[in-house]
Amino acid sequence: MAKLYFRYGAMNSGKSTALIQVAHNYRERGQQVFVVKPEIDTKSPVVLSRINVTRDVDLVSDADTALRDVVLASGRPDCVLVDEAQFLTGEQVEDLFRLAVLDGIPVIAYGLRSDFRTRGFPGSLRLMELAHSIEELKTICRCGRKATLNARTVDGEFTQDGSQVAIEGDVGYESMCGTCYLNKVGTLG
Amino acid sequence: MAKLYFRYGAMNSGKSTALIQVAHNYRERGQQVFVVKPEIDTKSPVVLSRINVTRDVDLVSDADTALRDVVLASGRPDCVLVDEAQFLTGEQVEDLFRLAVLDGIPVIAYGLRSDFRTRGFPGSLRLMELAHSIEELKTICRCGRKATLNARTVDGEFTQDGSQVAIEGDVGYESMCGTCYLNKVGTLG
Amino acid sequence: MAKLYFRYGAMNSGKSTALIQVAHNYRERGQQVFVVKPEIDTKSPVVLSRINVTRDVDLVSDADTALRDVVLASGRPDCVLVDEAQFLTGEQVEDLFRLAVLDGIPVIAYGLRSDFRTRGFPGSLRLMELAHSIEELKTICRCGRKATLNARTVDGEFTQDGSQVAIEGDVGYESMCGTCYLNKVGTLG
Amino acid sequence: MAKLYFRYGAMNSGKSTALIQVAHNYRERGQQVFVVKPEIDTKSPVVLSRINVTRDVDLVSDADTALRDVVLASGRPDCVLVDEAQFLTGEQVEDLFRLAVLDGIPVIAYGLRSDFRTRGFPGSLRLMELAHSIEELKTICRCGRKATLNARTVDGEFTQDGSQVAIEGDVGYESMCGTCYLNKVGTLG
Repeated sequence: MAKLYFRYGAMNSGKSTALIQVAHNYRERGQQVFVVKPEIDTKSPVVLSRINVTRDVDLVSDADTALRDVVLASGRPDCVLVDEAQFLTGEQVEDLFRLAVLDGIPVIAYGLRSDFRTRGFPGSLRLMELAHSIEELKTICRCGRKATLNARTVDGEFTQDGSQVAIEGDVGYESMCGTCYLNKVGTLG
Repeated sequence: MAKLYFRYGAMNSGKSTALIQVAHNYRERGQQVFVVKPEIDTKSPVVLSRINVTRDVDLVSDADTALRDVVLASGRPDCVLVDEAQFLTGEQVEDLFRLAVLDGIPVIAYGLRSDFRTRGFPGSLRLMELAHSIEELKTICRCGRKATLNARTVDGEFTQDGSQVAIEGDVGYESMCGTCYLNKVGTLG
Repeated sequence: MAKLYFRYGAMNSGKSTALIQVAHNYRERGQQVFVVKPEIDTKSPVVLSRINVTRDVDLVSDADTALRDVVLASGRPDCVLVDEAQFLTGEQVEDLFRLAVLDGIPVIAYGLRSDFRTRGFPGSLRLMELAHSIEELKTICRCGRKATLNARTVDGEFTQDGSQVAIEGDVGYESMCGTCYLNKVGTLG
Repeated sequence: MAKLYFRYGAMNSGKSTALIQVAHNYRERGQQVFVVKPEIDTKSPVVLSRINVTRDVDLVSDADTALRDVVLASGRPDCVLVDEAQFLTGEQVEDLFRLAVLDGIPVIAYGLRSDFRTRGFPGSLRLMELAHSIEELKTICRCGRKATLNARTVDGEFTQDGSQVAIEGDVGYESMCGTCYLNKVGTLG
């Protein structure tokens, strides 16, 4: 039985790099991958790693995309990889689950587990409920501990205000451990 | 830094046995544990393992229990263990997070991740958002694959009807793999 | 494909309890397990947990036992469980690997990874080389940190003398973290 | 307490990419890493990833290098990263263990666990005995299963002959699952 994997990590933990490496591994063994990225990150139709590696995506999805249909119509890949999986809808996660369970295609979804208020994204929460395997990609806080939360800054100040998704201009993010988050942001949101 | 651990597993995966073993290990090294169990399972104020081991609980909590206050007032244990952690409120999970991060007391919470409709419980979802470490306790489906979902039966028939929690009379549960769940229950709920 | 699992842990981490729980889970789903224990622990032909649960073993093996032949002749169980797997020979671990890979029978081997001088046992080292999945059962040191090493005492004094296996009279063992091991035992052996 | 991590994986599983990503993460948080590579791979004093990212190493070690002394003399980094850690000596692994336990510097060692005859390398075996955390970097076999073993080819033919390390001319390697290894190479070596 193929599985649905959720590989989560705080911001800048190397999720896109890991995806690109796995895509490379499959291709190197003569296998076909299908790479999906939800459109919410409109800046680029590519997977973009912070160590300066990129990869084209096969599908930029929106909330209405019927993922299972599109993947099966594409010619049955050996593996489906999803970047920024936190932006999937719950129904799309169910589609990925069916691709693994009913169609025998392994699916590896990379994403954040929680937003700047420590709350799950719709895609992450459904992945946490359904994934056959939940694996963490670790990164560190500025203090040296493991980072597990994501803090938002606006003009360099920590804030818990604003919508769940915001990437414009003066908005920044920093992955943090629990201690630093409580110290700097103040509450769990 | 102490951590908040979420050790999740399908029904009958041995969560209570694992809790009792960890409590034993701490005591054997001369350390103190504090065992919490939400009151929703009204049958017994003990941790009850299916291999016939039991352990008294130190606190039967309800939705209003201020977990952090009670634990700290109890004399500062070396570890907090929670049985049936899916029945905690989100606020109580935040309390457990603070016990680990601010008070330096490790917390290990054992629980289901999802109900018979594949939906998270309030406590499980908040644990999935906040736990420093998410670990699976594995068990098997009747077909031999790993079980990750929980199906409900009423009078021996699979159903997706009813409230999230029901343990009376003719209601039964079976842990299942995705394939068997889709075959027997029909949909993802 | 079935897998060979190595679930290792320091002394008193609950390996036998975990084995008994898994055996229970299989039986409860109507499946057959086959429990093996190397004879070196001559005290008892049972799996004995420190929380006072026991289970009969199906085979007490010695270094000459052809594990794969015996298991296949026994009527093809759904799973093979091994207690004290550190005492297997390397060839027997290879047999377990073949049972998983060629015969499709999952094998879960529980054991120590290292002796009181921090050196691997023959069975553990071959399991570390061949197992499809290596998983840790955690326990704690007297100081509260995770214990990963095993120290030997004779008449209550820590020592690095003696043969790899010794369980008679005044010999005792304590699972320890690296810091306490270096402090109390002195060197890495 | 800092920890010694062993992150192992079959050939071409992305170990060097992962190391480069972690080094990037530390630097991005204003922290200092120290990158070690045993000299046995004489081709290059850099960490070289197959997705075409490279990083300079801070130390090319040989079997006589006193790793702990060199690292501490370098100015106390926040983290030590080791590429091709299977080529360390056992004593050097003990030095890494002491760097973590006694000096409080986390060490992450990336390497193969076994050679083309399924036997551990000296560095890998000692890491398997001493590491506080053993984590797998997964990759796939040509058949789609997880690869856990490494097969050697000479002129395109699978072989179990030759020395443990050989990277000249017509020697090639392929990461494989157990089934394909037994089918193509024949025995476990």
